[in-house]
Amino acid sequence: MTELMIHLDANSKKPLYEQIYDYIRLHIADGKISFGEKLPSTRFLSKYLQISRSTVELAYSQLLSEGYIESKPSRGYYASDISGLYFGKKQKQEVFMPPKSRPFLVDFSPEENEYAYFPYNIWRKISKEILSANDPTLFTAGPSAGEWELRSAICNYLYHARGVNVNTEQIVVGAGNEYLLLLLAQILGRQKKAAMENPTYLRAYQTLLNMNYDIHLLNTDENGICMDELYRLHPDIVYTMPSHQFPMGTVMPMKLRMELLHWSAEQKGRYIIEDDHDSEFRYKGKPIPSLQSYDVNDTVIYLGTFSKSISPAIRVSYMALPRQLLKSYDTKCSFYASTVPKEQQRALTIFLEQGYFARYLNKMRKIYKGKHDLILSLLKQESWVDTIYGDYAGMHLLVKLHTGQTTDVIIEEAKKKGVRVYGLAEYMIPGLPHTKETKQTLLLGYGGLSEAEMKMGIACIRNIVLE
Amino acid sequence: MTELMIHLDANSKKPLYEQIYDYIRLHIADGKISFGEKLPSTRFLSKYLQISRSTVELAYSQLLSEGYIESKPSRGYYASDISGLYFGKKQKQEVFMPPKSRPFLVDFSPEENEYAYFPYNIWRKISKEILSANDPTLFTAGPSAGEWELRSAICNYLYHARGVNVNTEQIVVGAGNEYLLLLLAQILGRQKKAAMENPTYLRAYQTLLNMNYDIHLLNTDENGICMDELYRLHPDIVYTMPSHQFPMGTVMPMKLRMELLHWSAEQKGRYIIEDDHDSEFRYKGKPIPSLQSYDVNDTVIYLGTFSKSISPAIRVSYMALPRQLLKSYDTKCSFYASTVPKEQQRALTIFLEQGYFARYLNKMRKIYKGKHDLILSLLKQESWVDTIYGDYAGMHLLVKLHTGQTTDVIIEEAKKKGVRVYGLAEYMIPGLPHTKETKQTLLLGYGGLSEAEMKMGIACIRNIVLE
Repeated sequence: MTELMIHLDANSKKPLYEQIYDYIRLHIADGKISFGEKLPSTRFLSKYLQISRSTVELAYSQLLSEGYIESKPSRGYYASDISGLYFGKKQKQEVFMPPKSRPFLVDFSPEENEYAYFPYNIWRKISKEILSANDPTLFTAGPSAGEWELRSAICNYLYHARGVNVNTEQIVVGAGNEYLLLLLAQILGRQKKAAMENPTYLRAYQTLLNMNYDIHLLNTDENGICMDELYRLHPDIVYTMPSHQFPMGTVMPMKLRMELLHWSAEQKGRYIIEDDHDSEFRYKGKPIPSLQSYDVNDTVIYLGTFSKSISPAIRVSYMALPRQLLKSYDTKCSFYASTVPKEQQRALTIFLEQGYFARYLNKMRKIYKGKHDLILSLLKQESWVDTIYGDYAGMHLLVKLHTGQTTDVIIEEAKKKGVRVYGLAEYMIPGLPHTKETKQTLLLGYGGLSEAEMKMGIACIRNIVLE
Repeated sequence: MTELMIHLDANSKKPLYEQIYDYIRLHIADGKISFGEKLPSTRFLSKYLQISRSTVELAYSQLLSEGYIESKPSRGYYASDISGLYFGKKQKQEVFMPPKSRPFLVDFSPEENEYAYFPYNIWRKISKEILSANDPTLFTAGPSAGEWELRSAICNYLYHARGVNVNTEQIVVGAGNEYLLLLLAQILGRQKKAAMENPTYLRAYQTLLNMNYDIHLLNTDENGICMDELYRLHPDIVYTMPSHQFPMGTVMPMKLRMELLHWSAEQKGRYIIEDDHDSEFRYKGKPIPSLQSYDVNDTVIYLGTFSKSISPAIRVSYMALPRQLLKSYDTKCSFYASTVPKEQQRALTIFLEQGYFARYLNKMRKIYKGKHDLILSLLKQESWVDTIYGDYAGMHLLVKLHTGQTTDVIIEEAKKKGVRVYGLAEYMIPGLPHTKETKQTLLLGYGGLSEAEMKMGIACIRNIVLE
């Protein structure tokens, strides 16, 4: 008992009970109080230290709950065996800085958008109004699939803009396409066999791969998927981008669409994932209706996003599930909380319902068309350009080089001059062999570029190629 | 040619090219223009209809891109074979309403929080300032793991509040715990063998099950996991809640913590997922440091959330990854866009950095302690209460019934009276047998209840039990 030389400091900011707790804890950890040793009773210790018994009891109960001591009924408190106790030594705090993306003078990234025309003021005004509304439900958990009003507004938009023929309860809202694919993989079930176009959207490929899907890559021709191959591989799921394939820019012809729908209807359990990522932007004729709009057999899963049409910061995507999958969604995924904050869901609902979205889309379609027409006319004047394809939709096109040069040299040389151009090869599934043609094809995004930037970028490529 | 009786309406809102497009498309679909039939040349048709040739060309190019017609070089246009074309018949729009949650007079849900004290005005003010700042980067995509400033603020908070010993780059922010578990399952790799306490947090169980994890349930005693069983099952991963196990309310003793850390260090590839969900709320003694804080072998994955400490609407969770998993995160998951909007990340950063969070937590700890003490004193007066456990932390406790009655009858009867009480059995893994004790134990959350509601709810249980 005399070993226990606790000196309490009544003036310390540390409460008395904590001083006792610390003293005993450290002595047990040090081995100065050894395993099995009896501790003084709370009555004794309070008398000895001349403090209230409840203070000692509080310290003991803390030690008890952390397992440093044990209580044996009508016998008292004993030090526990904490052999191997690790003491938290604070790691040396190394200085790490966040990786900074290297800025380029001109960046032909297909993921760059034009943000300047987004009606920030309206978005801010709507957001502020939502925050000011003093609605306490803004801070409570909402439905898993998203707020009903938003889902209803999306359903309405999809019907009118893309012919998507579903009801509100089939719409699921989530934080980005990849998140929705993660949900889908759970809804569709374990280790399905999926077919994807080669090349395809790498993020979708990586996501399905992460979900342990058995992925088969389909060879494509100028129309897209070869149906023969599909019948040979008999996958459960086909992931495709009929409106404007990424990265190839192909528009799937009606005949192939019908064949695909036939294929999925032929056998129960077959589904088509239609990623309609940049369908809003088409610069010739009117938009091609979605594949889903022709599906009478409830087999198309329609996937869309506001990240392209509004801004990457509005990380809201949506999917329209076939009715036959609603039960599986309910069982397997409806327990997840929504990944989109209510504020953002409500702002987006107003943005859609009050026509701001439609107006913004119309404006952007004109702006992107202008950019598209400009880059196309600029490229057509270039002697090093052989063929241009994937044009008239989206925000990127493909340029086959006339010279037979491969893109990797051009990319490296351009980087040195502050210009980032992309090669089609960068968008191929890693590890697979490329065709010669792939290596000779540039992928140029123009969504974020001004006329001056396009001209500067193209001049840079010209100088490298023709040097 | 004379078959093609296109009547153009110059006053129609529908553009001329679209009228041509529609006419031909419908006639092909109807079979009035049959497969292989030659179409008039654009020159002929423009003359015949007395419109510009480019209008006809636009219609044809739309038909071409959708695959309704084909172009044969120097021969002209031919109708395609679109046998089996599905025409989008709009489904009958059934009237579905969103499922409404039935409101109860008193709800003992463990997920109900007290929202009244949240500094809405401050949160709104911060959010509005962020929106007003006119910062264009607010609308661009941010880093996958979250904004550096937020991760740094979380890192700092975790070190001081929970002893979590990591650097900023180990922190990953995401939209909710379940989302982070989905990422984790991808980082850790395919089909791991995971051990979880039985019972455990059902959402985590369902998430890992959805990710095809081979899950083994560990029997628990009053301290938690039985280590013998762990050694017998040799899982790769243990998911546990050392600070306050849900639903059992157990606090893991230090000895067991050390044993668990020993276990994970013994073999490469072993990890502990520490879900520290409601560690902020402890009403006796000082908070118990996290398991992670004692881990010197880089094996603990620490998981925490602001959904409990702030509000379920702030769907921001974070994990601290061991250094050895950073590379795998980078390869497998860093391509995902962040699931938390920048606005919210920035608001939260300010909320943390400027001390609002600490102040709010301190206030809420007092308020929840008040609620805890009150419900405990009320329950102790009840003759039907046998044992209370899981108290002194979190926002729920367990009550074993004195009477030997099972909880299901009480739950049903209480519902009829507008009171929702919960049985421990509702939180058990579905399909597994329950012990008699489980069926006789109520789980009562008090986070969202006022004194009057507690009294009303307890009186309701009393009347049912003692009737």
